[in-house]
Amino acid sequence: MKNIQWLLAARPKGEPTRGDWKHNETQTRSPEKGEILVKVEYISLDPAMRGWMNEGKSYIEPVELGDVMRAGAVGEVIESGDDNFSAGDKVYGSFGVQQYATCSAQGVHKVDPELAPLERYLGVLGMPGMTAYFGLLKTGLPEAGETVVVSGAAGAVGSVVGQIAKIKGCRVVGIAGGKEKCDYVMSELGFDAVIDYKNEDVKKALRSTCPDGVDVYFDNVGGEILDAVLTHINLRARIVICGAISQYNNTTAVKGPSNYLSLLVNRARMEGIVVFDNIKHYGEAARDMSGWIGQGKLKAKEHVVEGIDTFPDTLMMLFRGENFGKLVLKVNHD
Amino acid sequence: MKNIQWLLAARPKGEPTRGDWKHNETQTRSPEKGEILVKVEYISLDPAMRGWMNEGKSYIEPVELGDVMRAGAVGEVIESGDDNFSAGDKVYGSFGVQQYATCSAQGVHKVDPELAPLERYLGVLGMPGMTAYFGLLKTGLPEAGETVVVSGAAGAVGSVVGQIAKIKGCRVVGIAGGKEKCDYVMSELGFDAVIDYKNEDVKKALRSTCPDGVDVYFDNVGGEILDAVLTHINLRARIVICGAISQYNNTTAVKGPSNYLSLLVNRARMEGIVVFDNIKHYGEAARDMSGWIGQGKLKAKEHVVEGIDTFPDTLMMLFRGENFGKLVLKVNHD
Repeated sequence: MKNIQWLLAARPKGEPTRGDWKHNETQTRSPEKGEILVKVEYISLDPAMRGWMNEGKSYIEPVELGDVMRAGAVGEVIESGDDNFSAGDKVYGSFGVQQYATCSAQGVHKVDPELAPLERYLGVLGMPGMTAYFGLLKTGLPEAGETVVVSGAAGAVGSVVGQIAKIKGCRVVGIAGGKEKCDYVMSELGFDAVIDYKNEDVKKALRSTCPDGVDVYFDNVGGEILDAVLTHINLRARIVICGAISQYNNTTAVKGPSNYLSLLVNRARMEGIVVFDNIKHYGEAARDMSGWIGQGKLKAKEHVVEGIDTFPDTLMMLFRGENFGKLVLKVNHD
Repeated sequence: MKNIQWLLAARPKGEPTRGDWKHNETQTRSPEKGEILVKVEYISLDPAMRGWMNEGKSYIEPVELGDVMRAGAVGEVIESGDDNFSAGDKVYGSFGVQQYATCSAQGVHKVDPELAPLERYLGVLGMPGMTAYFGLLKTGLPEAGETVVVSGAAGAVGSVVGQIAKIKGCRVVGIAGGKEKCDYVMSELGFDAVIDYKNEDVKKALRSTCPDGVDVYFDNVGGEILDAVLTHINLRARIVICGAISQYNNTTAVKGPSNYLSLLVNRARMEGIVVFDNIKHYGEAARDMSGWIGQGKLKAKEHVVEGIDTFPDTLMMLFRGENFGKLVLKVNHD
């Protein structure tokens, strides 16, 4: 079968451009023993992809030039060379930005389309949900009654962070861009307050929305917002560094947090997290989160864009704050 | 008796200048009940003093304009209105930059001049020693075999950090400025390696002196050196933020650590410390450290400058890296 793929053609300087990608047409390959052939249905688009395009050591190997762009995805097994999978199984795996993937069955796991729509396994029941769950609970260590602030509050990770913090009895303040996202965070997700960073002075708004200071800050954005929150943290605050989407496309140096000495004054902590470290505990997290979804305490929203051909442009929506909910690419198979 | 004091006359912008201080001559006051009159012998000069000169909230109240500059000091009780102290007692307290202090006996404690020279109670047996002990052991959490890097390695805090890390079985690399300090760190303190930041490329030198990466970084300086170490940390590294002497006199914004996203990649932690939080445990620390001094495992060096009149200039030695060992001012009483 014909298989359309997006290959990494060049390492971007600053914002990725169309020229950094190669649109490739190839043929599917039958799976060998231990492999499966998957028809990809939804591809996860994540801020982390920007980092995978760079050369050099990170928490994961970079994507090599000429390789299919790495991406988490869900789809259906259409041919299996592995005893654990059969044609018709719905599966999650690192299938890449392509219509079909022939890959080792290792690291692939089945998902239940009865329990939740397939695309949800890329959001609240996938990496973003796991990132929120473990980052908040294991590193943020929120206690009931504390104030938790989260940036990217309407996003795939931030929306889950805030909802879990509410479940744990915290006062939750979101930071998001634009009225529509802010309204969603308040009325749909039930946060206690929201700051619209596009239309408000974040420092001032932190003072009014967090009268008792900030105990936990879950940071998805970095830059000026991280700096603003640092001026308002409490003694022994925990700052979870999950991402820094405002800085990923910088062509100059990343803006470090000028107010980091607030960590000293407040004996506070700033700690980085990578979701893969918790892989052995994904099961517990999925059970907790499915339970909360069932009870209506945890809501999810996906932003679905159709057509694998739109990939280079659709990815950029993340960096422009144009997506509203977990961004996924729905793969068309003509 | 005549009492010469230094008062804070203005809040400095950038480097403190002579005009920020007022030289004042007054008379001593007899102690009331619960007070003591102390003849101050040695005054501790510390980087933290720069922070106390600023307005606004920090981990401690700022010094008010017109007040005697705050300083830890040691001296002799010459008149006591408190049952716990008698004339002739040698004591440590926050006596300020002056020849004589009449103050509440609360927070003052006796020191033993037989056990160590008086000025040592401002260094390894005082705040800098306690800062090193608790910052390294409680926040740095070094394990035998790990690599510990410390900046300001020849200084009052750094020299103790490195020696305690050696006692705990770590590989220790110091960062200091100039050949004399670097030689001292190697030959007297027994560090495993040293980097002369004034004459070496710190990033390169970190690669060669820390072939297994950095597990604990104890930071006294901030700025470029913190940024360089961030590029070379290991998974789950602990960065102890004790100070940032390179930044205290900035007139522009503090330089935040541009490479802070290394915390994310390495799931590492950056945490601030303030020594006063450990006040209940100073006793244990003093016992440990006295023991190590007795065994010759922990060495101390003070840099004594004579004459209270030199205070404004002597303080500046800290920010220029001109002191070599714990900087103390020996008070003259004509």
